This record gives sequence, C-alpha cells and structure tokens, in this order.
Amino acid sequence: MSSQAPHPTLLIPGPIEFDDAVLQSMAHYAESHVAPGFVKTFGETLTLVRKLFQSTNPAAQPFVISGSGTLGWDVVASSLVEKGENALVLHTGYFADSFATCLQTYGANATQLKAPIGERPSFEEIEQALKEKPYKIITITHVDTSTGVLSDIKRIAEIVRRVSPNTLVVVDGVCSVGCEEIAFDEWDLDVVLTASQKAIEPPVPPASYYSSIGNWLPIMQNYENFKPSYFATPPTQLVHALHTTLSQITSRPMAERFAVHAQASDRVKAAVAELGLKQLAAKPENQAHAMTAIWLPEGLAPPDVLPGLLKRGVIFAAGLHKEAATKYIRFGHMGVSVSDPTRKDIDNAIAALKEAMAEAKQAKGL
Amino acid sequence: MSSQAPHPTLLIPGPIEFDDAVLQSMAHYAESHVAPGFVKTFGETLTLVRKLFQSTNPAAQPFVISGSGTLGWDVVASSLVEKGENALVLHTGYFADSFATCLQTYGANATQLKAPIGERPSFEEIEQALKEKPYKIITITHVDTSTGVLSDIKRIAEIVRRVSPNTLVVVDGVCSVGCEEIAFDEWDLDVVLTASQKAIEPPVPPASYYSSIGNWLPIMQNYENFKPSYFATPPTQLVHALHTTLSQITSRPMAERFAVHAQASDRVKAAVAELGLKQLAAKPENQAHAMTAIWLPEGLAPPDVLPGLLKRGVIFAAGLHKEAATKYIRFGHMGVSVSDPTRKDIDNAIAALKEAMAEAKQAKGL
Repeated sequence: MSSQAPHPTLLIPGPIEFDDAVLQSMAHYAESHVAPGFVKTFGETLTLVRKLFQSTNPAAQPFVISGSGTLGWDVVASSLVEKGENALVLHTGYFADSFATCLQTYGANATQLKAPIGERPSFEEIEQALKEKPYKIITITHVDTSTGVLSDIKRIAEIVRRVSPNTLVVVDGVCSVGCEEIAFDEWDLDVVLTASQKAIEPPVPPASYYSSIGNWLPIMQNYENFKPSYFATPPTQLVHALHTTLSQITSRPMAERFAVHAQASDRVKAAVAELGLKQLAAKPENQAHAMTAIWLPEGLAPPDVLPGLLKRGVIFAAGLHKEAATKYIRFGHMGVSVSDPTRKDIDNAIAALKEAMAEAKQAKGL
Repeated sequence: MSSQAPHPTLLIPGPIEFDDAVLQSMAHYAESHVAPGFVKTFGETLTLVRKLFQSTNPAAQPFVISGSGTLGWDVVASSLVEKGENALVLHTGYFADSFATCLQTYGANATQLKAPIGERPSFEEIEQALKEKPYKIITITHVDTSTGVLSDIKRIAEIVRRVSPNTLVVVDGVCSVGCEEIAFDEWDLDVVLTASQKAIEPPVPPASYYSSIGNWLPIMQNYENFKPSYFATPPTQLVHALHTTLSQITSRPMAERFAVHAQASDRVKAAVAELGLKQLAAKPENQAHAMTAIWLPEGLAPPDVLPGLLKRGVIFAAGLHKEAATKYIRFGHMGVSVSDPTRKDIDNAIAALKEAMAEAKQAKGL
C-alpha cells in the first residue's frame, strides 16, 4: 500500500522502508532555515523528540544535528569527556569497537568490557568494572546491529547510579529508538544518541567544533522556543521528514509501538527457529526486537542466500561482526514495515527466507 | 514552471529553490547503502563532482559526507593541521571568524588577515603575511555570504605557490561552487569545501573521528570504483538528489553556467544601482555573482523591507556580518532560479524589491 515506485523491500538494520508521508516530506519545497514556517517545524520536532523518549524533564535537551549516526559518537567524545578521563565501553559487537576508537581519538582512556559473540557483559562484570576506577562515562549500545544483541539499559543505569553515581550513562540508540523501550527520565539516563541530551557542562575548551554540544545548545533551545537561530544550517528537508515521522509515532502511546515491534520480532524468531536456524543472540533476554542476526548453516555464506531473497523482492544485510561476518545474515524488522498493518513486509520476508534457504541448501547439496 | 506546491520564492544565500527533478530525487524509495543500485549512484556522483571542479587529476579525491557545510571546516581543521601549526585566514566577513574559531578549537594558531566590510585583503597584504611565518594552510572564503564579497582564488593561489609553495590552499566554496568559476587543477588548489580534496597525508593520530579525512578516504575511493564500503552510513536520499543536480549541471559546459550566473548578477546589480542603493562589496571586482548584499537607506532596517518582499512572494535574508547585521539585506541569485530560463524568479524579485523599498520609505516618511 504505497505510492512509491516498485522496489525490493528493504529489511536491513537501516536504512529502512519509508512511510509515504515521510518520504514526501523529504520533497518539501525550499524554505529558509530562519523563516517562521520552518522554525515552527523545527521547534515542534524537538518537542516531539521529548515524547519519543517519554521525557518531561525540562533540563533534558533534545539535539537534532545533520550527519550520520556516527556523528553522535563525536558529540559525546568531544563534548563530554576530557583528555585522560576514563570511559567504560560495554561491548556487544562491532559498534563498541568503533565507539571506543572515537573516544580514544579525542583523548579518552576507553576500556572495553567485552562479551563473546551474541552475549553481553554480565551485570556482575559491569558492577566490578565500575568499582575498579572512576569512569566519566559508560557507553552502552542499546542494540548492536552486528549481533542483534539487546542491552538492558534500565538495569545497567541502576547499577551505575548505585555504584558510581557521577558516571554519565550514554546510550547508543541508533537501532533502538522508537523500537525498544526507552524511558529517559525514569531510567535516569544522561545521553541517548543521537536524540536527547541532558544539560551537561561541556569541557572548556571543547575538542571539536561542529560536534560540540556547547555550540549547538543555544540553537536547540532557541528553535524549541520558536526563535530562529544560527550556528550551522540545519537540514531543512530532513527536519520536515523527521517532523512527519515523529508526529506519526507519537500520535499513539509509545508502549503500543514497542509491543508491535516485539510481536513482529516474535514472529520472525519463531520462523527462524522453525527453519532450524540459530540466532547470534542465543538467549531470549539478549535478543533485539527490531532485527535478528541469523547464523547460516555450515557451508553457506551470505552470497549463497541474499540473491535468492532479492529474487523474491526482499533485501537482508550480510554479517558485520569482525570475527564472523561471512557466517550470518541480518534481518531488520522495524519502522513502517512492522507498524503499518496494511503492509505484508514481514510475512513476505519470512516466506522468502524459507524459499531462499531451501534453494541455497539444495544448490550446495546440503 | 514547477510541480511544487505554491510557495514564496526563496532567494537567500542558501537554502535555495529546488529544481523539480532534484526535489523528487530526495523522495527516492529506500535503498541499502551497500546495494548495487545505490553504490552505482554514489560512485557516479563522486565522478560528477570531479566534473563540477573541472578536475581530471586522479590524485584529487572528492569526498561527500553528510552534514552541514560547517562540517567541512572540522574536516580541514582536524585532518590537515596539527596542533601548534599556523593557519592564515583571509577575512572577508562572518565566515572567516567562524573558520578561525574552528581551527583554534583543534589547536591551530589561526591568524586572521582582516579587511573592512565589503573589502578583501589586498594581494600585497597576503604576500607580506605569507612571508612573515610558515603557514601550514591558508583559508579563503570564496564568497562570504555575510558581505557578498568574492575572493580571487586564482590570484591568491598563484601568490601562495610563489611565496610559500608548501602552504595548503583551502577554499571555502559553500556559496560559490557551481556559480563562480573554480578550476581545481589549473589553479593548483589543495582543498575546496565541501567537495574536493587532494590526497594529503592527514596527521596521525587524527584529531577527530567523523570529520577525519583518513576515515573517509578509503570509503570514497571504494564507492568511486563501485565497491560498497562502510565507515558511517551515507545519506542515501541526499546522494540521489546530489546525483540528479550534478547530472544536470555537468550536462552543459561549466563556463556556460558561470556566464548565466554572471548575467543574472549584472541584472540584479544594475537594478540595485537604479534604486540608488549601494552594495557592501562596493568595488566590482569584489562582487560575488551568486548573491548581492545591499545596504539599506539610513532609517530602514531589514524588518522594514523583508515583509514587503514576502507579501510579493519573495524571500531575501537579513544581514549577518556582526558589525552591520541590522543595516543591510541579502539577495541570493543562484541555482535553478537563474539557470532555468522558464522561471522568472529574478525579474519578479527585482520588481518586488522596487515596490517593497518604495513602500518602506513611504511608511517611514523617507
């Protein structure tokens, strides 16, 4: 049920399928970034971000800055940690390695707490690590899209507040926001990337310019109060699309949205099990609800399966974890593909996966 | 002649009016950033960037990175200058101050060579400054949109090569690329923001992550060879739009495009003179061809004139230069507003300016 040109359904952990109205918002006519119409759109968008995070704390400031999700790491690394300060990076896959590299680039001492593929550091290990030295921040990938591992943000935040209350809790929510529950105020989080940010005093002098919270803070405060403001030109088209999607998402209770994602995830995971396939995240409590990372049977690699999916109109992603990339595939099930009941994206993808797997096994004589 | 919803014509120094086909490209259906279709689009886009800069030097690498134009400063400041190295910043308005601040943020010693409002540093001053100490880079704002002042990049590059040949010539082309002539190879430039970049050895370790040339270089090289690659997810929709606009622009000789902008600029500047108004850039050789910064008569401020323009369907920008922002307005005349002969944007804007000025003077009894 889409006005978009026919195309294979994109079911990877991002980019994902667009809702028609969101896509059309990208094609909004040109507007000045300081004109009343756009200022209203941007201001409302920032307010909608608060709703997305179930936050009513006026001291928690949302930021919307143009760039890839990766830019969020630079914002944290250059704005919240000073050279020589300690950062504890919880490792559940590829993105922890990269976030640690980013932190080190700006001079932080990043310590990674690593877990085997598909696992996550235990609560005991986290508590132990926090007791060993003073950490300025702890970073947690909410969903690591290289493994499909979900972190228990609420529990980790509780541990931090008990053991090391001044440590800032930084959540990389790039593949979780809007799909996995996040209660910014209730869980007492400090930062969720790339969308919400408490008013924290940044280091002086800052270690970056474009990615400096200090440079953007007055801009966001002004726009949210419907005052035009300038540090760097915001991406007017993208803000329109964000406004449209946030309006849609927040028009229903967030709990309902999380439940819809959990239901779709259950269907996918049941189908994967029925096919005799295992997930990288073996334990149910480790499993993300917006994607599934699936081990291929011995003898099969992503190029044996992905073309068969594409032939059936579905795109999955190959593996990404450095130690296992050629041994698994990733199925993204989030956003409009699960929230729009008129779409059959997930059913079609499950059917395509069954057929493509059978075909691939047969071709290899497995 | 547009399929876009009716809206006031946006004639500011960016954002600017969209061509219909470019705008529709923003609403392209979702694609994976590593799928063959998108890889082809991105690879071709990088090749088109070379054409835009009239560059055939294989060692000159185009970069396309998601972010505001400001991010280009961080790329230069964090990737090309080491702490304590000298940077010479030629000042023709607001954006030199900001670029200098960005350079200082990353530890460079930035020296500004300032000119009065509407002027630019003389060639003699530039030569003198270059002889005083060794500079790692010199930065030049090609068109400073706070003043409408155009810099003579070709002449400055010649001076640098003669006096201080190892100094990197960095051009901020945010408001000039595609409107003012740039011959990257012929003029022997090192960097034009945010679009082209020679293969220069970045400092080790780099001072940033997202804005590090070293992190992006292999990605751009791979995409240009039609190989998918990952450092941070590129903005697939924006790349589509860029591909469309660069295809349009480079389908005709660049010289023709520069001439079209010069002709429109002549018409605007003649109309401004006819109204008895002066430009910030008083000398013709200082005047940009894609915008005009216009002093208001004594007794008038931007809020006296801009609403009268809007009433007539035209949007100009207020002043921006810190010392004079309330005393002038800025008229952007670039892109599809001047290159599409079926549009009457410039004629309409000139007519609206005449009427709005008359109305404002009458209201103030001037």
